[in-house]
Parts: sequence; structure tokens; C-alpha cells
Amino acid sequence: MLFDSEKLGARKGEDVIRRLKQHPPNLWYRGKQVTNPCSTHPFKNSITTLSSLYDYQWKHPNIMLMNEGGRKVSKAFSVPKEKSDLKGLGKALIKSAQFSQGMLGREPAYLNRSVSCFSACSNFFDVGGSNFSSNVENLYKYIRDNDLSMTHTLINPRQNRRNDPNFQLDPTVAAHITKETDSGIYINGARLLATLPFADELAVFPSRLMSMSEASKNYAFAFIIPTSSSGLKFICRESVDYGLDKNNYPLSSRYEEMDAVVVFDNVFVPWERVLCHRDIDICRNFYDTTGATAHIAYQVVCKNIVKTEFYLGLVSLMIRGSDLDGFQHVHQKMAELWAGLQTMKAFKTASEAGARTNVFGMLVPDWDPLDAARFIFPRLYPRMVEIVQELGASGLVALPTKEDLQGPLREDIKKYFQSARLEAQDKIDLYRLAWDASLSAFAARQIQYERFFFGDPVQMSSRIFRNKSCSEAMHRVENFLRRDVQ
Amino acid sequence: MLFDSEKLGARKGEDVIRRLKQHPPNLWYRGKQVTNPCSTHPFKNSITTLSSLYDYQWKHPNIMLMNEGGRKVSKAFSVPKEKSDLKGLGKALIKSAQFSQGMLGREPAYLNRSVSCFSACSNFFDVGGSNFSSNVENLYKYIRDNDLSMTHTLINPRQNRRNDPNFQLDPTVAAHITKETDSGIYINGARLLATLPFADELAVFPSRLMSMSEASKNYAFAFIIPTSSSGLKFICRESVDYGLDKNNYPLSSRYEEMDAVVVFDNVFVPWERVLCHRDIDICRNFYDTTGATAHIAYQVVCKNIVKTEFYLGLVSLMIRGSDLDGFQHVHQKMAELWAGLQTMKAFKTASEAGARTNVFGMLVPDWDPLDAARFIFPRLYPRMVEIVQELGASGLVALPTKEDLQGPLREDIKKYFQSARLEAQDKIDLYRLAWDASLSAFAARQIQYERFFFGDPVQMSSRIFRNKSCSEAMHRVENFLRRDVQ
Amino acid sequence: MLFDSEKLGARKGEDVIRRLKQHPPNLWYRGKQVTNPCSTHPFKNSITTLSSLYDYQWKHPNIMLMNEGGRKVSKAFSVPKEKSDLKGLGKALIKSAQFSQGMLGREPAYLNRSVSCFSACSNFFDVGGSNFSSNVENLYKYIRDNDLSMTHTLINPRQNRRNDPNFQLDPTVAAHITKETDSGIYINGARLLATLPFADELAVFPSRLMSMSEASKNYAFAFIIPTSSSGLKFICRESVDYGLDKNNYPLSSRYEEMDAVVVFDNVFVPWERVLCHRDIDICRNFYDTTGATAHIAYQVVCKNIVKTEFYLGLVSLMIRGSDLDGFQHVHQKMAELWAGLQTMKAFKTASEAGARTNVFGMLVPDWDPLDAARFIFPRLYPRMVEIVQELGASGLVALPTKEDLQGPLREDIKKYFQSARLEAQDKIDLYRLAWDASLSAFAARQIQYERFFFGDPVQMSSRIFRNKSCSEAMHRVENFLRRDVQ
Amino acid sequence: MLFDSEKLGARKGEDVIRRLKQHPPNLWYRGKQVTNPCSTHPFKNSITTLSSLYDYQWKHPNIMLMNEGGRKVSKAFSVPKEKSDLKGLGKALIKSAQFSQGMLGREPAYLNRSVSCFSACSNFFDVGGSNFSSNVENLYKYIRDNDLSMTHTLINPRQNRRNDPNFQLDPTVAAHITKETDSGIYINGARLLATLPFADELAVFPSRLMSMSEASKNYAFAFIIPTSSSGLKFICRESVDYGLDKNNYPLSSRYEEMDAVVVFDNVFVPWERVLCHRDIDICRNFYDTTGATAHIAYQVVCKNIVKTEFYLGLVSLMIRGSDLDGFQHVHQKMAELWAGLQTMKAFKTASEAGARTNVFGMLVPDWDPLDAARFIFPRLYPRMVEIVQELGASGLVALPTKEDLQGPLREDIKKYFQSARLEAQDKIDLYRLAWDASLSAFAARQIQYERFFFGDPVQMSSRIFRNKSCSEAMHRVENFLRRDVQ
Repeated sequence: MLFDSEKLGARKGEDVIRRLKQHPPNLWYRGKQVTNPCSTHPFKNSITTLSSLYDYQWKHPNIMLMNEGGRKVSKAFSVPKEKSDLKGLGKALIKSAQFSQGMLGREPAYLNRSVSCFSACSNFFDVGGSNFSSNVENLYKYIRDNDLSMTHTLINPRQNRRNDPNFQLDPTVAAHITKETDSGIYINGARLLATLPFADELAVFPSRLMSMSEASKNYAFAFIIPTSSSGLKFICRESVDYGLDKNNYPLSSRYEEMDAVVVFDNVFVPWERVLCHRDIDICRNFYDTTGATAHIAYQVVCKNIVKTEFYLGLVSLMIRGSDLDGFQHVHQKMAELWAGLQTMKAFKTASEAGARTNVFGMLVPDWDPLDAARFIFPRLYPRMVEIVQELGASGLVALPTKEDLQGPLREDIKKYFQSARLEAQDKIDLYRLAWDASLSAFAARQIQYERFFFGDPVQMSSRIFRNKSCSEAMHRVENFLRRDVQ
Repeated sequence: MLFDSEKLGARKGEDVIRRLKQHPPNLWYRGKQVTNPCSTHPFKNSITTLSSLYDYQWKHPNIMLMNEGGRKVSKAFSVPKEKSDLKGLGKALIKSAQFSQGMLGREPAYLNRSVSCFSACSNFFDVGGSNFSSNVENLYKYIRDNDLSMTHTLINPRQNRRNDPNFQLDPTVAAHITKETDSGIYINGARLLATLPFADELAVFPSRLMSMSEASKNYAFAFIIPTSSSGLKFICRESVDYGLDKNNYPLSSRYEEMDAVVVFDNVFVPWERVLCHRDIDICRNFYDTTGATAHIAYQVVCKNIVKTEFYLGLVSLMIRGSDLDGFQHVHQKMAELWAGLQTMKAFKTASEAGARTNVFGMLVPDWDPLDAARFIFPRLYPRMVEIVQELGASGLVALPTKEDLQGPLREDIKKYFQSARLEAQDKIDLYRLAWDASLSAFAARQIQYERFFFGDPVQMSSRIFRNKSCSEAMHRVENFLRRDVQ
Repeated sequence: MLFDSEKLGARKGEDVIRRLKQHPPNLWYRGKQVTNPCSTHPFKNSITTLSSLYDYQWKHPNIMLMNEGGRKVSKAFSVPKEKSDLKGLGKALIKSAQFSQGMLGREPAYLNRSVSCFSACSNFFDVGGSNFSSNVENLYKYIRDNDLSMTHTLINPRQNRRNDPNFQLDPTVAAHITKETDSGIYINGARLLATLPFADELAVFPSRLMSMSEASKNYAFAFIIPTSSSGLKFICRESVDYGLDKNNYPLSSRYEEMDAVVVFDNVFVPWERVLCHRDIDICRNFYDTTGATAHIAYQVVCKNIVKTEFYLGLVSLMIRGSDLDGFQHVHQKMAELWAGLQTMKAFKTASEAGARTNVFGMLVPDWDPLDAARFIFPRLYPRMVEIVQELGASGLVALPTKEDLQGPLREDIKKYFQSARLEAQDKIDLYRLAWDASLSAFAARQIQYERFFFGDPVQMSSRIFRNKSCSEAMHRVENFLRRDVQ
Repeated sequence: MLFDSEKLGARKGEDVIRRLKQHPPNLWYRGKQVTNPCSTHPFKNSITTLSSLYDYQWKHPNIMLMNEGGRKVSKAFSVPKEKSDLKGLGKALIKSAQFSQGMLGREPAYLNRSVSCFSACSNFFDVGGSNFSSNVENLYKYIRDNDLSMTHTLINPRQNRRNDPNFQLDPTVAAHITKETDSGIYINGARLLATLPFADELAVFPSRLMSMSEASKNYAFAFIIPTSSSGLKFICRESVDYGLDKNNYPLSSRYEEMDAVVVFDNVFVPWERVLCHRDIDICRNFYDTTGATAHIAYQVVCKNIVKTEFYLGLVSLMIRGSDLDGFQHVHQKMAELWAGLQTMKAFKTASEAGARTNVFGMLVPDWDPLDAARFIFPRLYPRMVEIVQELGASGLVALPTKEDLQGPLREDIKKYFQSARLEAQDKIDLYRLAWDASLSAFAARQIQYERFFFGDPVQMSSRIFRNKSCSEAMHRVENFLRRDVQ
């Protein structure tokens, strides 16, 4: 039986490695298949990091784990009913993000939130004569109780600017259903953009941008399958971890999540793995009705608080270390970062304060603050990075390595690379970190990631324009125009 | 006895006018004393507006008033103990700001919050051997129970960039104590910048920026006196209400608050009116220890929510009226405004969620979200105004007046000034409002007011830099540098 | 004969007044016709300024005038052949702009440039069987030799976002030809936006945004008629000159140009006054083929150099007067202004250096630098204004008037309003000017004027996108991709 | 004799390699000395590129070379007398920059300009009793006639924010004179930041930021010595060329210039190599009096024109390739880039138009446009990079490699990675280039390089504030205040 397994609950790092060795994802890198990612660059470091995160949850069991059917499972799978549940979840998500300074944007908690919501609202998946609610519940339990990691993919490749995959030059480019049997469906085509492709499972969730037509139904589905499924190929981008040492690349060498295009080469998906099948209506309302959009955004805002705090701490150390306290423009930059942090924190708090129980009985954080957070953070984050660049200045360029400190020139290094208040070694450590947070290829990918996390910012503005009712505000101005202030 | 009066509680508009006629403030405009401001330009309109605000509170008694000793008083004088009190206060403050679309930045509620805090924390005024707590309480009750309006002044004029008034070229320029008798103190010199100078009372509160020296003590005081006190002169700036009609100047003709420099020409202040006397320590901690800074900022954030909502409504009507829905850059501008509104709302909510009871038993809203709000709003507001300018474009310039609509060319006007979805009359009404909110001298004074509301933004950044502890964030980065992620 | 007149050449101020009194333009203000604008608010001050500008040219005859047929005429009518001509013209245009600190954006020189170009390239007006070249030449000589001032109008009113006037809800809204006789044509409808409507002549030039259709031809024309023509109505916007004194309103009381919508009520245009008739082709190429676009933009860049210099001088005086020299952020602001000035100067120089003779033998300044200048200035100018606001801070609000300095409080004013390095009187003068350049309704109209001078900035970007060939740059990158660096 | 050599004039690539093999610079990388940089990562690729640049000049001899004493030498060594000389030089500099798309900021032409200026103004080096003019001339001829490449270093390391090297915690940190003999001087200490450290010669030029004191004289010198000199050590930063293939790293693998801190370990400098010795006055005026600042800035603006054009071409290809022509925000971004290019071009043209002959008879381009260019470009360049990031979006992340195109998945790649108007291969080529120009560590180092090219932007603003006379602009405003418009 498909979901038969040990169900030991929250895993440790060694469990993660063991499973990936048994079921290696179908990763392709630089034209070659990587059959043993756990020990092969550029996946080795990333998988080590991922496994450490699983160990980390056991170091903070009170915050990060919860009891479920006699075992401990990750709190990222929780379904909050009360505001106290939601705040407890928030603490777990923040703790988890602190493991990677917020740099692992797609740590498992991110997708755990979505399957938890789907399961809590499983009745939704039975609308219109569908009958997928039990699949949703079973998949959720399977993932939760085996503490599996997921990657996912939402977007259809496009050759032109029309959104519907059926109206592209070549309608077979986007992943679509090509066959249907008693035991399942067959998928061909491609999907963008699976981050963390060395996870255990691949969640293929619907793209919302589809027209309502018969032809579009072949693109309207959702399922979750193992990343090692036959016919699946993850075509990875060039890594931003260059396989260099952890001392000089403190972030790149740890938190490269990798992104991949997923190719489905006649991939078979058993019915048990299917959440939605040829149903455009369900696809369109998938995230919102189940509260998944809000819960995912809540995880993201928790992560972004941690990430912003990291930059604030980094910048504060640079200011102190390089004796920049006396400059007004430096104060201004620190204050900007600080205000950005407060903004993200306030959005989190406001989403908790306004949380409401949905029709399925699950508490859903208030959407408007979270939507504003995801509008604003892509503007804040590139500026944070820029602040590190501006404060670090040539100090981020004229920077030797750890090896220099240990080589024949060590006395020169000690003498010539000290700063106002830091020994050379500490200066180098701090500034290599600042470099990796602002000037490395890793740093740049983080910028790109945050800027497009929730899609094209231009389209996001249009979505806000269309979806937010300003009728009360308009009404107030109309009243004033009628000299009828109330 | 000084504070003897009717104590009728919350006033109506006619009470306001009657009192101002009996005790006209010492207003000077364009070189002349204005002896009857209630019927003289440029104060007439403003005083009418102020009196309407007092009527308005009686239209919303459940929201804006509370019971106190058998009478109704304004909720702006409340001292919250529970979070529900604070939220109720917030509702009252928002309702009050809606009266003027947030354009009356110094409506009485603003200063009511500070005297309420002082009274709730009156013991603070007895530190160091002082004995002013009963004055503080009596003044508070007097103002509350007579529902008086206040203007105030905080800042010493400077001729150079040193902050201390004693180290200016001419140390007699800043208001200072020149004599002390059994019955009170005498003040000479000037103070900046009393907004709403046609209020009933003038609160003279300490400037925090003083050095600790004997000579500075003469500048270290706080008191509240009637604006009609002998020797007091309010030298007003040029009005931005040009005395023109309300149709074409819908905001300017209503919400001009006026700003004035206050000159003290041997003004006598009876001891009963004194809150602090020659005590630099108290001056420095005046606002923060009493929670007044936070409570004032809370009122301001309520006002700014209303003001932002006004711009959002205005812009939405312009977009609809001129058929601009199809442009992505228009969406972007609306989304910016919307996100700004969410930000301000989130700061309010977060300040409530994190409110804590201070040592005097008063609930104080959380400071960090409010401090961030006052850092960010001066950046948001000029942009809101700019958005109106950008969307209004030449439509804000090629604009006839109401009189044109009623004159011989009325048919031309109707034909040539209609827009996509608005009749000429409605177009003119809406765009005159947009003009007054973005391009009039009134609009510009609002920008300047918001930009410098809490002082020089450059200094505010430095204050944040110095006051906010980033030690936790720094600690986390240091741990990471030591490879010790927790 | 229509163009029969004295032809005395360059006028003096009294000539201007005399003519306007004889032929008052059809001005409507606040619903009433203004029959005597020379002595009626809000036109009185503006006309005085205009007439002074005509006196001013006689104070700088070597720079501003040239010989033409035995008389002196304004150099703004010159047709450059050599680069030295162009530079001489530039000097005249700069001198002229200095008269109003660049605040009179539509001083007569602006349109003089266009008719000069049309005349120099008059053959263009005969294309396609038309025969208007002699009209063009005669009109040019008439205007030049009588030194007339012009206002003009280019834009059709729109009720929807389609550009073609024929495809509006009501196609009779835009000015169009309704009758044609042997002696001329009749025009009905409206046009936007005539600035300086109290000029002598109205130039009605074609809007470029038209489709090629028979129905559109009725909107395809160009002519110049007296502003006093029968049936013409200038519906003026509300003035930003509030009729107050020149001391407190140093710019508003002088440089209000006024903007008006022009209504044609069966206006007769004699053939002699027509430049183009029902010819869409000519309308589309009108400005570019004749070099008028470039020559107008050259005048504008000269004006903008003067205007920027004015802000730089103003800001420098404020920095010196208020002792702000020690602040880095102040340096930054000054440096921004300075770099903006250099940018505008460089565009002027580059347009001269790259000037080329067109097919009609006229030297035309290089277009790309001028096009870039008109792209950039609308971004620079609002920032200049903002810099004045930021540096002036509360000093721009707490500001008494000249009358205060002369009234009973004069000693208070002298004492309390001095700044670091300025007596109160000088401080007030300087800061009232700064206020009028940054915070008055006049200042705001200047912002709006500059921002939309050459039309919607969004459309301007699209125009640049479509019109500029980047093929060389693309070719270079393609070569690099082919590893073929040349 | 020191300067004895073949003097063959303009070199070819093989000459460059030969000489570097004979005289390898003292490079240290990752704690180890690199004894054979021509064949060792990370210098190998860079040196290949440098040598190709020397071949390239021979492909364009008419533009890039000139006759000098019977041989061809690089035009970058020319001393312009006439404007036509200057324009010819500009053409050569632009051609040279096109070799590397402007990415080799410190290509030899950069420093060639400075030694050419020094030599043309060699008398300057004899002021105050010094007698270095013949050294200056000899060194210039030696470098020119052997067509040597130079790196240089200007900045003293600082441990605190005081500029003077003598007032640091440890005054022996900055490079200083420790001994003086008949044959030369001895130098100890360090200097920042030698870019292109694998050049033939190291120019050690004075830091301007010194106080006038006896103790400071030890830091006041200038000389040029071989990079292979005994005791010299170039401590290189971590490379941004990761030694990966040229296909996937089209820029990183070619244009990594490397930056190094220079350590002087008792380095002997023969008198013949000295340009200035213990003379603070000369140090302070070194660049300006000789016109070197202006000529260097002229080279830089030529380079920046090419670099901007590269981004404009790149962005245009991306827009075309991905069918983005229909979006207004895309037009806006292209227009921004285009206007930036025009700005840089206009500054170049204006500097030529205003060029003046200095006291030594050399033509010096006008300084103000060049100074403005170097103020503005550090603001433009990061925005250009951002535009590539914004337009490239997830297309810059979901990107396979060349190897993928050649591997077993080639058919998948071809199908799934085509864009609207590009085959997969061309799409990959273009987007890898865009990635390397905007998101690689190489791209980030370019940003940092441009941002700090001429030093801290904050200090640059202050320098402009102090050095630019605004007296004329101030005078004009003062005249206006006195109602005396001229």
C-alpha cells in the first residue's frame, strides 16, 4: 500500500539522509544525472543543511514539535483553532527560520503549511462531484507522520505573454494530462520552478491563471508524488554554491536551495496521489478557500522577520566594528532596516489579531496585513542588501581569506586588515559574511527570489487593484463631496 | 479660584464660540492684533470648523464620549486600563479624525491624550522633591470637565545648530524664567510652533534637548495657561485659507489650523498652572515616563489611518471617474496607497497587542510599532500627494470653478468638462478636492506638517540608531559566526 | 489687409499694454467675462510682468535683439544657419528666461521658436498639393515684425482613453471644422490647454495623435488667429495669484501664466490664417520635419538651466543663511541640484555640438540630447522643490509677513526671527521666496507644469521605447554572444 | 640602465604574456604565492583577456594607435593640443572599452592617461625645489614605448575615521618612507586597492587626504615600480572567476580584474622611479594641476558610455526575445537606460566643447561635466543592473547550462526552454549573459566598483558642496530679492 511506512513522526537528520539515499530524486545538473546527491556537489552541502534542520527541531522540541497520535510531529503541520495555537505556530516557524537566518526560503515548513490547510479543509476537494477529500487527508497524514520534505511547482512555462497554457505556441509544453486509467493519470510536459528539488516529495499544485475552457482542463490538476518517481526530471540551474570552503562562503556553502525546472516524461500518478483532476474551479480557489494562501504567507512573514533581523544584526556589527557610529547617513540606514523589521513584525501581529475561523473550522490569519507584507517585502529586501553594500564599501572588496590568515603572510594580514574595533580575523569573518549576504551569487539569487517570491510585482499590484474593495474609503470621500461628514 | 467653572463636560459648538468670544486668544496676523477671531479672516472658518467638531462628538456619543462623575466627557481624556479600553479609545480617535479627513492634525484629541497621561502618572511630577502632582491632576480635570481645546509649544528658537537654548548667540531668545514670586513665575522669550493657536489653553511643555547645567534650568519648565493670558502673543504665519469659497477650496476653507510663534512678554504663570519648575530631569523624562509619547503617537497613527484612507478613496474615485482602470502604473499607485494604509493599520494593531501597564497602572501601547509608524509616515505622505498629482495630471490644471457652472458658459462647461464616467459638475467637484489635497498651499503645508511632525527626520534616524537595542540581532549573527546556531 | 500693421519690430512694455487694451482676449474667469484684463485681477499682475519682459529685451539689445529689414526684432525669431547662430540664440533664450527665473514657462520666446521654424521650412506646408507656404511665411513675418505674443493649444479633450477625437463618446467635443467657404473655415469644439491666454495671438496646432481616416480630417488643421477673435472663449482655471502683495508672494504675484481651455463657438478663420487644412500627414509630421520640436526643446532646456540655477542659488542662500554647512545630508542635496544643473547644461551643449542642417537649410540642434533632457527634467524638478522643503523645514512654516516687520511687534520680530547669519528682515524675505518656490499653490502648479510639459511621462517612455533605435547596441551584444568582439 | 629596453611600441598579446612570464608580479592568493599567474587560476583567464586587448589594438590601428618616433604607440598615451585631438582620443578610448563591454574598468588606458598628463605637465614636478620632471618624462616614455600596463594604489588603510595616516592607532600601517639613500628610498606599510595587480608596473600615487605636518611627509610620495619588485606583495581578494567555463560565465571568465592590497616589505625604489618625495603640496595638487583628474574622468566617461550601451543592448535583446514590447513598465525601464546613456554622452560632449588649454599647453576637458558624470554614474549603474534583474525575472533563475543542451536531455531543453522569439540555445546564451551582468558575484563586484570608483559617494557630495562656486546663482537670487532682475 502506497502510504504504508514506519510513521515515526518528527525525523532526525540521519533519517533524512537515509531516505534520500534509498530514493534519490531525479536530479540533473550540467547535463548529467546525479545519482547520489547526498555525496555529490552541488547537492551535498544543501542536503547536509537540510538534515541538520531536522536535528535542530529536536533541540527545541517544546517550540517546534507537538504530540500527534502518540508521536512527536513538527508543529509546522498544526491546524490552529485558537489564537494561542496560531501564536504557538508562529513561534515554531520563527525558530525554524532562525536555523538558516531566513535564507532557506523553502524549508519544509513552507509547504507543510499548505498540506495542513488542505487537510483541515478537505471537504473543499469534494465539490462539484469530485471525491478527493480522503486522498488529501491521507497524503497529509503520510507526510506529517513520516516528516517528509516537499518541493513544489505552480507555474506553466510560457512562450508568449498569455497566461493560459493552452494558448501557447506549443500547447504541449506545459505539463498536462495525456492519459487516464483506472489506476491513475499520466503527465507530460514541464513546470516551473521547483525549489529544494532534493526534497522527498514533489507537490504539483495548480496554476491559477487559466481560462475556463474544455481544452484547459488537461492542465487543471493537483497531486503529490515522490521526487524519485519514474519519468520525472529536475533540470537544475547552475549552483551558487561553488563548492568552496565554509569559512569564506559562510552562506553559499550552507543555504543553496537550488531551483529546477520539472520535466514530466510520461509520469504516472496513482489516483491515491491526486488532489484535483480536470477541475478548473477547484484550481482557481484551491489556495484561498482552504486558507493555504494566508497560512503560507504567515510562514513567509515569520521567515522574513528572521531574515530582516539577520541583516539588522549584521549591519549593527559592521557599524560597531568599523566605527561608523558618528555618521548621520549610517544612522539613517540602520533606522531604515529597523523600521522594516517593525513593519514585518506588525504585519504578523495584525494577522494574528484579526485571525478568523473559516467555514471548515480552521483559524486563518487575517489576509490584508499578510498581503501587504508580501507587497512590501520585495521592495524592502533589495534595499537591505544595498545597505550592506553601501556600508561595507571597499572593505567588502579588499578582503583576504581565512587561508591568508593561516599562510606565510599571516603577520601582514594581522597588521594591515584590522579595523577600528576588530582584530583582522574577526574583521575578515564578519566581512566575508557581509559579502556573502550582499555581493555573492548566492546573495543575488536571494534578491531575485524575494523579488519574485509571489510572482511578478507588476501583476501583484494589478491583483491588489482588482481585489481590494476601496468602497468604504470612496464612500467617505463621496460623503465629504456631498458635505455630509459622518 | 482658578479652576472654578461650570464643568459641564463635553461641549457643543456654541459653547466653544461663546468661550472664545469671552476670552479671545492673543492672535496677531499680518502685523495686526485680531481682537475678534470668531468673525475675522483667517480665523473665522477654522473656528467654525473647530466648533463643528464639538457638535460632531455629540452625534456619536457612544463612540466618542464616556461617563465621568455624572457627566459626559470626551473619550480622548480616558485613561485605559485594559486592552478593550485602548481599542475603544482608538475607535473614538478614528471617529474624531474622520470629521476632518485627518486634516486637522492638532484637533484637541491630540493634546488631550498628553494631559490624560500626565494625570494618570501624576506621581512622576513629585520626583526629586517637586510637588506638582496635584497641579497636574487639577489641570487635567479642569480641561476635561470643561472640554477645553489646547495648543502647545515645545521647541526653543535657535540661531545656531546647538540645541541648548542657553548656548545660542542671544540666550534671552528662548522662553525662560525671569522672575519667581510666591504666587507664580514670569516668562520672557519665544517658543515655536503653536498649531491651532485659537484654542482655549496654551500648554508649554519642555523641550527635551537640553544640557544638564545650572544655566539651563531657567528653560526647564512646563505649564498650561489660557491663550488669552496677558503678555502672550501668537504671531501667526500667512494663512493658507485665502478666504475664498468652500466650493472651490473644500479643504483649505475648512481645515486651516494655523501655526504661530509664541512670544512671552513678561507672562505671569500662577503656581497652580505649573507642572514642572527648573527641573531638567523631569523635562527629559516628561513624555516617556508618563507614557504620553506613546499615547500621542497612538492618536497620530489613528489620524494617519484616516488620512491615508481619504487619499485612497480620493484616488479610487479619480481612477473610476476618469476611466484609468486599464493602466498597470495606475494599479501600482493604488496598490502603494493601499499597502501604506495596511502598514499604518498594522502598526496600530501591533501597538494594542503589545500594550503593557506602566508603573502608574496605566495601559501604554507598545512603543516600537508606533515609533516605526512615525518614522515611516513622513515618507509615505508626500508620496500619496504625489500620486494624486500624477493621476490627476492636466485634469488638475484645466479646471473651471463652480461659478463657471452657474454662469453664461454653463452649457460649454457641461459639454467640454465631462470625463469618461462623470458629469462636468461631479468632475469639477472631485478634481477641485483633489487639487486642494495635492496642489494648493494648504496641501503643501500638510506635507510640511507631516514631514516634520515629530521633528527633523535626520535626527529621528539618529535617535532610532541610539535608542533601539539591536543586541539580540547582533548576538544571533555573532553566534552564527561562531557556528553556533541556536 | 489682414497683416497690415506698423511692423515696428521689437516692442516695449507700453506697446503690449496698448494692444491688449485695444484687442482684449476673450477671457472668462470664475463664470464672468473679463473685459479689461490689464487692470483686473487675476490678469493684471501677469500682464504687467509680460509687458516688463518686453522692456527687458531693450535693456539687453545686444543679446536679445537682432536686425531685420532695418528694424530690431527679437532674436527668438531667428533662423540659425551656423553653430555660432545657434549659440547666440541660446544666449538670448537664457537671458530671456532669467527675467522670470525660468518661471514663465510660456514666455513668448517659446512659441516664437516654432513659427520661426515653420517659416524657415515653409515648403513643407505645400506637400500633397497644399499651398500654405506663403501663409506660413506671412504669418511669421507679421508676428515677428509686430513682436506679438502667442498662446497655443495642441490637445483634444478626451472622454475616454482613445486618442482619436473622432472616436470619443461625443465627437463634437474636440475642435473641428464645421464649415468651409471661399474666405475661410469655421471651427467648433474645444481644445486644451492654452497657457498665457492673455497673449495677442492663439496658435492652434495639430494634435499628433490621430488615426488616418476620412472622419479624422475634420480635426486635422493648424491656424493662428487673434485671441480677441469672435466666438473664441478662454475658460481660465482658478488663479494661483491670490491678489496679495508682492512682498509676501514674490513669485505668485508676478509669474502666474494662467492656463485655459479654449472653446470655439463657430469661430471664423480666414484662409490667410490657415497653415494646414484637413491633412493628417502634415499634422503628423508638422513639428518634426520643420525642426520645431527640436528648437522648442532647445528653448525649454535653456529655460530649465535658468530655473535650476535659481533653485541652486536659493538653496545655497538658505544653507548659508541658516548655517547648515556642516551637515552631510545638506551637502548631498546641494550636490544633487548642482549635478542636475550640469546635466541640463550638458544636454544644451551636446545639442549644439551635434546640430545639423536640415533639408530646408536650417540648423537643427541634435535631438537625442534634447529628448533626454525632456525625459529627465520632469523627474529633476519635483525633487528640487522637495529639497527646498526639506532644507527649509519648519522655517518655512513659522514665518511672519512683511507687515509684521512694520507693525507694533516689530521688535519682537527682529529679535525672534533672526537666523544664524541673517537679520529677521532678510530671513523673512529669503524664506518667503523659498515658500513661494516650494509650498505655494504657484509652486505646485509649476511642478505639475514641468511634470506634464511634454505630455504624460508614461507615454513619453513608450515613445522613446518605440522611436530610439538600439540596433547598434543590440548588434554589439549579439556579436559578443557570438564571441566576435569588434 | 633602468629604462633600457626594446621600446617596440604598441605590443601584441604574446609580448604581454612573455614579459609577465619573465617578471611575474608578486601575487598572493588564498595564502599562497602564485609564481606563474599566466597559467594559474584565478589569473590565467584575466591575463589572457589582457593580452587579447593588446592584440585588439592592432585590429583597429587607425583608431587606437598613433605614430611616435617612428613606431606605433597606443593613443591612450596621447597629449591633446586641439579639440580634434581630444575627440580622436575619445574615439580610441571608446573603441578600447568596447573590447570588454566596459567591464575592464582598469584597462591600461585608464592609467596611461595619468602618466601622459604628468609628462605633459612635467614642470609641475619641479616646484618647491624638487627636481623630478625628467623622471616623470622618462617614466612616461618608458611606459609608452614599451606599452606597459599599470596598476595603481592611492589610499592609505585606516583604522579610524581620521584621514591622515599619521594619526591612526598604528602609524606604521600606511605605506611610508623608512629610509633614504643615495640610490633611492625604502618603503614599508600597506596601500589600498590595486586593481589589475597582474599589470607590469605599480604606480603608487599620493593620497590627497593629508594634513600639513612634518610627520605626514613620510607618507607624501609618488613613484612607479615593477610589480615584480622585491618586497612587494599583492594580497588578492577571493576571485569572482570561479574557474568555470566561458559559456556559462561569459563575463566572469573573461573580465575579472582582481583587486589587491599592496604590502611594502622594505621595498626599494630607485630615485629614477620617484615622481614626488616628501612634498605634501605636490601630493595635494598632483592630479588637478596636471589635468590628470579630468583626463582620467574623461577616459572613465568613455568607458561608461560603452558599459551603458552594453546594458541597453542587452535589455533590448531580452525585451525582443521574451516578447515584452507591450508593457509600459518595460518601456519605462528601457527609456531610463536610454536617457542614462544620453546623459553620459552629453557629459562627454560637453567636456570636449568646454576643453581649455592649461598652463603647460595641454588641452584639458572641461571639469564640471566630468565631475557631474562621476557623481551620477554610481547612481545610474546599480539601477541598470536592477533593470536587468527585473526584466529577467525567474528567467534568470530557471536556466540550464550549455552542458544540458549537449547532454541526454537536449530535446527536453530545446522544447521547454525556448522563449517567445528565441530558440532554447539562444535564450540560454542571452540569459546566461544577463545573469552574469546582473546576478553573479562578478556583477556584484562591478556594482561595488562603480559605486565607489571615485571614493565614498557621501564624501563626494561634500566635496562638490565645498568646491563648486554657486556665487553667480546666489547673486541672481539676491538680485531678485532686491527686485533688481538683470
